Amino acid sequence: MPVTDIATRVYNHGWRLDPVVRSLLDTDFYKLLMLQMIRHLHPEVRTTFSLINRSTSVRLAEVIDEAELREQLDHARTVRFSQRELIWLAGNSFYGKQRMFAPDFIDWLADFQLPAYKLGKSEGQYELTFEGPWTHSSMWEIPALAIVNELRSRAALKGKGRFELDILYARAKAKLWEKVERLRELPDLVISDFGTRRRHGFLWQRWCVEALKEGLGSRFVGTSNVLLAMDNDLEAIGTNAHELPMVLAALAEDDAGVAAAPYRVLEEWRAHYDGNLLVALPDAFGTAAFLRGAPDWLADWTGVRPDSLPAIEGGEQIIGWWKERGRDPQTKLLIFSDGMDVDSIEATYRHFDGRVRMSFGWGTNLTNDFRGCDPAGGHELEPISLVAKVTSANGRPAVKLSDNPAKATGLPSEIERYRRIFGQEGQMPQAVRV
Amino acid sequence: MPVTDIATRVYNHGWRLDPVVRSLLDTDFYKLLMLQMIRHLHPEVRTTFSLINRSTSVRLAEVIDEAELREQLDHARTVRFSQRELIWLAGNSFYGKQRMFAPDFIDWLADFQLPAYKLGKSEGQYELTFEGPWTHSSMWEIPALAIVNELRSRAALKGKGRFELDILYARAKAKLWEKVERLRELPDLVISDFGTRRRHGFLWQRWCVEALKEGLGSRFVGTSNVLLAMDNDLEAIGTNAHELPMVLAALAEDDAGVAAAPYRVLEEWRAHYDGNLLVALPDAFGTAAFLRGAPDWLADWTGVRPDSLPAIEGGEQIIGWWKERGRDPQTKLLIFSDGMDVDSIEATYRHFDGRVRMSFGWGTNLTNDFRGCDPAGGHELEPISLVAKVTSANGRPAVKLSDNPAKATGLPSEIERYRRIFGQEGQMPQAVRV
Repeated sequence: MPVTDIATRVYNHGWRLDPVVRSLLDTDFYKLLMLQMIRHLHPEVRTTFSLINRSTSVRLAEVIDEAELREQLDHARTVRFSQRELIWLAGNSFYGKQRMFAPDFIDWLADFQLPAYKLGKSEGQYELTFEGPWTHSSMWEIPALAIVNELRSRAALKGKGRFELDILYARAKAKLWEKVERLRELPDLVISDFGTRRRHGFLWQRWCVEALKEGLGSRFVGTSNVLLAMDNDLEAIGTNAHELPMVLAALAEDDAGVAAAPYRVLEEWRAHYDGNLLVALPDAFGTAAFLRGAPDWLADWTGVRPDSLPAIEGGEQIIGWWKERGRDPQTKLLIFSDGMDVDSIEATYRHFDGRVRMSFGWGTNLTNDFRGCDPAGGHELEPISLVAKVTSANGRPAVKLSDNPAKATGLPSEIERYRRIFGQEGQMPQAVRV
Repeated sequence: MPVTDIATRVYNHGWRLDPVVRSLLDTDFYKLLMLQMIRHLHPEVRTTFSLINRSTSVRLAEVIDEAELREQLDHARTVRFSQRELIWLAGNSFYGKQRMFAPDFIDWLADFQLPAYKLGKSEGQYELTFEGPWTHSSMWEIPALAIVNELRSRAALKGKGRFELDILYARAKAKLWEKVERLRELPDLVISDFGTRRRHGFLWQRWCVEALKEGLGSRFVGTSNVLLAMDNDLEAIGTNAHELPMVLAALAEDDAGVAAAPYRVLEEWRAHYDGNLLVALPDAFGTAAFLRGAPDWLADWTGVRPDSLPAIEGGEQIIGWWKERGRDPQTKLLIFSDGMDVDSIEATYRHFDGRVRMSFGWGTNLTNDFRGCDPAGGHELEPISLVAKVTSANGRPAVKLSDNPAKATGLPSEIERYRRIFGQEGQMPQAVRV
């Protein structure tokens, strides 16, 4: 007879809340890297971040209960960095660099709280926005996405029998392990978990990270999730994101300032991080324009992360640019992280093997691939394309163009203006699945 | 933070024994049905049952620790029928019949204990024999097989990491569920679990039975395992086995007595069970001879369980015999239970659909199919062909011929004698995998 722990059982049936976010480290590492720089260089800027569900056929406001969503968002606002988290941030080395985070930044984090949110509904979708200092509203991106995605998973799982759940997770585990066995065949693979924002749930992401650690050994170099990096003694992985050029472009006084913003922000980055973390994200306003206008020092950076072109096209474009600029691609790094899965990782790896250094950031298809796993045949667990983007800075509209017009965000009139400034060269429309 | 139940954790690390056999009901139902008749009609017969590993390449004595094996066998000898088990046996109806077990038999079971065993080693195999009254030595068949198979599984799993085990069981669950989904496509399927003797382990068999109950609904009609039938409110399934004709043939005074034994035992059976449970097992000494010599009343029985010919050949042979004897096969039942798996179940079902009633007993490939599931790629969990057969009765050698010469058991000289008596017509050599 199994012993039943009565207290645990009673608690499990009656708890007030099963929090999605239990730690402010349960976020992507680049948020902290960007945060330190934003606080240093742009402390007065105010921004608005907004949730955008590109999978409009999934009517989130009809799937997720509003009271539950508010409870989770409210709970996240009660969470603070714990002492041991701050000690770890201060004492750990990142990318081999000691004291990546300055003492005054660590002190400032001790009082950090996520700011208020606004929640409404429109046409079956939630309108969820976060307004405040850039330093604060920005930090909602990952927890907000994690909360909405996990509440959607929970809604899909509600009412399923114990056995159905058992099969569902058994299948998902077996499915991930098939992927691990395929990836193990790539001898020089370098891969990390980028799946926090789109994960099925926190515990599942943790299982996936443990699976990669166990199954891929040294090929698995870390996770973007800071909490999981700390708990599993893994490298925290990340550099910077689209919000930096988007905010700086929004704040620019004229079109020339907009055009210069993507480079200005990288200068700031390089100076702020003393020449570390030199990976550029080229596609905020189109990769072709970015590369054409890039100052020569950018070709000296360690690498580039193409994020909206198909991996092989994007990689070739960047390799071509390095060659044009007289650099040897074999010394350079490409990071692929846009909707990758085993097929595209294998194809990309084989395509570039020996020509360039490569690293893969594996996101949604790592931490939220339950396709074909539901024994009832449902599709409610299939991932959606949910993002939280900066939509304004100091009251001025922010814009992202990307290389894929389906991923553009911003006011239509502003998108038009940015397209005039950067051109539309190399735009490649693709369906956005995840 | 999960709560750790300290007492449970300490107990789990220090227990004396994790028993394989915890109940005398953890056996096949036909053992109890046969036992009641043996006690009634043949209480003085003494028999020896012997473990036979047909998979000689697996050197069991090098895989399973002898001390552990003795501990498990000794533990099984300490187990008694519990009051609630006896009440259930007395009060439950089987195949719609009330009081299948007489009160004096139930009383007698209350004191039942498995008899002593003899354990030695030879050429890498265990020599495990059970000698005593037929009523007692016979009851070792299933527990002995379950113990040896589960200890072999445990040896294969020893030292595997928690994660490896997690993947292994996730894959095995996903694999079984694929089978369930295929079987669900057969609208009139009638199937039951016959997997006790070859199971990976008790807990795994229980999971498999729960899976079939959940996944196959009314297509899943029950289990041969009496304990699992009781615990899960399922039908206990079974009738009789080769040991009955084998013992009666061994005791026969002359060749004519041997030739008559297979029919005499069925007459005893019919009389003992008042015309219930009328399913004949035709292949103890070859199906062709059995059918040719069968008295006409046998064609009136409900069904036949071909157990060593390939399912379709065996079924056709029996259908042909029913027709010869002027019976309508559509009113008759064929039970297929020899090494079945989804492919052969589907093929057999489709072959006979509409021509005869069918029922499938699914054994080893239900409860012990871990092929391809070990993330380390090992084969130590693949099932072996292990049986426990009656080898002598009142000191006279017992023989089984079967339709497959690879399944014959007994002294070579006696096998020769039986082959003269019954002929070798219809013998079909096949590899014995499980």
